[in-house]
Amino acid sequence: MKIQLALDRFTIQEAIEIAAKAEKAIEWIEVGTSLIKEFGVKSIYDIKNRFPDKTVVADIKTFDNAKYEFELCFRAGADIATVMGAAPPVTLRTCMDTAGQFGRQVMVDLLNTQAHQQAEIARLENIIVCQHISKDQQEEGGGGTWGRRAASRSQQLAVAGGISLENLAAVRALQPDVLIVGSAISKASDPLLAARKIKETWEALK
Amino acid sequence: MKIQLALDRFTIQEAIEIAAKAEKAIEWIEVGTSLIKEFGVKSIYDIKNRFPDKTVVADIKTFDNAKYEFELCFRAGADIATVMGAAPPVTLRTCMDTAGQFGRQVMVDLLNTQAHQQAEIARLENIIVCQHISKDQQEEGGGGTWGRRAASRSQQLAVAGGISLENLAAVRALQPDVLIVGSAISKASDPLLAARKIKETWEALK
Repeated sequence: MKIQLALDRFTIQEAIEIAAKAEKAIEWIEVGTSLIKEFGVKSIYDIKNRFPDKTVVADIKTFDNAKYEFELCFRAGADIATVMGAAPPVTLRTCMDTAGQFGRQVMVDLLNTQAHQQAEIARLENIIVCQHISKDQQEEGGGGTWGRRAASRSQQLAVAGGISLENLAAVRALQPDVLIVGSAISKASDPLLAARKIKETWEALK
Repeated sequence: MKIQLALDRFTIQEAIEIAAKAEKAIEWIEVGTSLIKEFGVKSIYDIKNRFPDKTVVADIKTFDNAKYEFELCFRAGADIATVMGAAPPVTLRTCMDTAGQFGRQVMVDLLNTQAHQQAEIARLENIIVCQHISKDQQEEGGGGTWGRRAASRSQQLAVAGGISLENLAAVRALQPDVLIVGSAISKASDPLLAARKIKETWEALK
């Protein structure tokens, strides 16, 4: 299991400082949608530049203009970029083509996808799918639930949405490859310790 | 009928220069998604600052984190911000609440929405709905078609997607309040003339 540290609602400098603290206990670093929309692709560039050995995920949430947006992410140094599963099929295909050209990867965010869209996405090869309870759904107090494991064996599963020590057991049942964790690490007084505790608890749940 | 000039795949400076050329024949200026994702909210700020008397639409395509993203747009000077109709209902509600607090407006982008989502959106009051054939769908050569007029009388209708002199008659049949035009104006050798021709042709179609 890998931890993807999601960095949202920070300045680029704050995000870098938090990632540096947690660095030894996380594998992937996510440049959150809010960083990209607030500061542009500079946020991706600066974070990859500071952490060249980490896998950097650009959570750009593409819904159109796929080639242009994915090229922006990959040129800025992202290893993985995200597309919404609710987007038109041509947009998902273009994201996969563009990632293939750069030798990078696509994460498909299943947030609010319909059953027929999930069935199509389950057939795609070599992607990461993200089961996602959104920030707005969390703040509403419920609304979303994580779903089942992805269908294709070549797919990796990431799980996101308010993950903390309290709900690790429920998340564990989904057998994810990637645990996307935000505030449980980024808002902790000791981000490194918080990330290590998540890993220890995860192992103990085996 | 108002023209919303959509500015995408430009630098902020290029976008400002194009808008300045077309200024006298357009009503609304759209800061395109690609400008926001490439350069951040500075793109919104700079364009509103240069055109304080124009209605500025921030095409931020919110799918989550609605309050944060809409506040970013409105604080940067946007008069209208966009949310995807395919997003969870709580996200749409939060966008409307945030816009209400700022005395600004929400444009709901219907791109790839399902019938049940369109039915819910049709009940919302005082929004602008955007019938949208996406860039990726256009480049695929078809895929999308504009739909019917919005249901609620308090809704304004905007139409987007490769609009040019060639398809004005088809667009006219939808009776839109706002015509979102990109490259037919922005890539024209004379953007002002191009915008004026669209208006003249539109009037002649009455």
